[in-house]
Amino acid sequence: MTAKPTLVLVGAGNVATHLGAALQKAGFDIKAVYSKTEISAHRLAKALATAYTTSLDNLPAADIYLVAVKDDALPEVAQQLKIGSGIIAHTCGSVDMDILKGSAASYGVLYPLQTFSKTREVNISQVPFCVEGCDEETTSKLEFVARSLSSNVHYLNSDQRQVLHVAAVFACNFTNHMYALAENILQQKHIPFNILLPLIEETAAKVKEHSPHAAQTGPAARGDQGIMQKHIELLKDDETAQAIYKLVSYSIGEGK
Amino acid sequence: MTAKPTLVLVGAGNVATHLGAALQKAGFDIKAVYSKTEISAHRLAKALATAYTTSLDNLPAADIYLVAVKDDALPEVAQQLKIGSGIIAHTCGSVDMDILKGSAASYGVLYPLQTFSKTREVNISQVPFCVEGCDEETTSKLEFVARSLSSNVHYLNSDQRQVLHVAAVFACNFTNHMYALAENILQQKHIPFNILLPLIEETAAKVKEHSPHAAQTGPAARGDQGIMQKHIELLKDDETAQAIYKLVSYSIGEGK
Repeated sequence: MTAKPTLVLVGAGNVATHLGAALQKAGFDIKAVYSKTEISAHRLAKALATAYTTSLDNLPAADIYLVAVKDDALPEVAQQLKIGSGIIAHTCGSVDMDILKGSAASYGVLYPLQTFSKTREVNISQVPFCVEGCDEETTSKLEFVARSLSSNVHYLNSDQRQVLHVAAVFACNFTNHMYALAENILQQKHIPFNILLPLIEETAAKVKEHSPHAAQTGPAARGDQGIMQKHIELLKDDETAQAIYKLVSYSIGEGK
Repeated sequence: MTAKPTLVLVGAGNVATHLGAALQKAGFDIKAVYSKTEISAHRLAKALATAYTTSLDNLPAADIYLVAVKDDALPEVAQQLKIGSGIIAHTCGSVDMDILKGSAASYGVLYPLQTFSKTREVNISQVPFCVEGCDEETTSKLEFVARSLSSNVHYLNSDQRQVLHVAAVFACNFTNHMYALAENILQQKHIPFNILLPLIEETAAKVKEHSPHAAQTGPAARGDQGIMQKHIELLKDDETAQAIYKLVSYSIGEGK
């Protein structure tokens, strides 16, 4: 491939915003941004100094159409979007590549494994990208795009990517919810959440060196029933948090 | 207080090892190390170039006896340990200060909020220390010790500290268990755990800027039932992980 492929961004949410900025920085020409919400399409197009549209029948020609919409919006977009030439690729963890089969002859997936928020910069060069294509040429073109953004690129088929997405829900969303429950608990006694930040940082840093199974500490890992009973009692005003305490402690014990 | 108080370390596990090294580095004179296990007492005493004993009746005179044993070993130590003068302080999150009432006239708590492993260095100067004393003079002496080690010192009474410990179990032990479950899930498809490290790091970094409630993303936060059903199906071979997926997703939804 001599020249960088041209792109159209379908979607204007967190993923599209972060990828769009990174792709432009890496020298890709983004021909247009689509969103069904005009204000979102306009906002991202403005940031990328490009055109926007709110109609899927109206996309300019491009080498790659990158569909960065929420997983549950993907079926509708896939059904409406038909292109004559070029590649269509989606960015979702849990959706099979084949959802795009009817949209183009060449289709694939470019899944960035990261949690994106509009207000935080993410170092894209460290983000793992998982690539899959309907044939070797498509895979290789998508891999070229991924490697232009990051040094951390993997080939994963749809089955593997779906399993990875479940694992990511545990490692990111559920982890973040453990932080949220901790914040709720501290609020009862007016203790600021930031007292936990060094502990949170060290817990995340530890698993760079050791498997999380080996790194486990605390009352459940020690089988300290006395402390666990005391904690369950302290959580009596929050049934859900109490049930999570019991179930996760049981699961830790099961792994010993 | 002109000179630094002298110390005896009661315990030779992870907490005693990390605190002992930090205290010595900060210029404290550690008179001896006690452990009921001779090999542990000897190992830590050697590292600190000090004496050791396996008998609680045989401790040298010191200003502060720091009892860094596991929470469930504390009642026995407290019952056996009686000192004429000086302060006794324990380092446990979930044990009331008053457990030491019969051991000395002056007693208190010096609780470092961190997860310590023998094989990892921890930057003690960032560790939050929670201090409590039976009277103002004791509190102030323990606070002096804490401030010699760290710039992050808090006064917390026993009720607050116990609530903090529950919150720490969620933010550290349960978080680490989410990592462990993610590792199990990836192993099914031979995907290496380290693919998750940038996501784990970003999830931990995000809550330095935003409340975890505001930072939440993912299928449960979006109420995406389709993806959640697919994930629950993918977890069908691990009943406990499946139950955790359902319960934590429900809890995330509850907070919306």
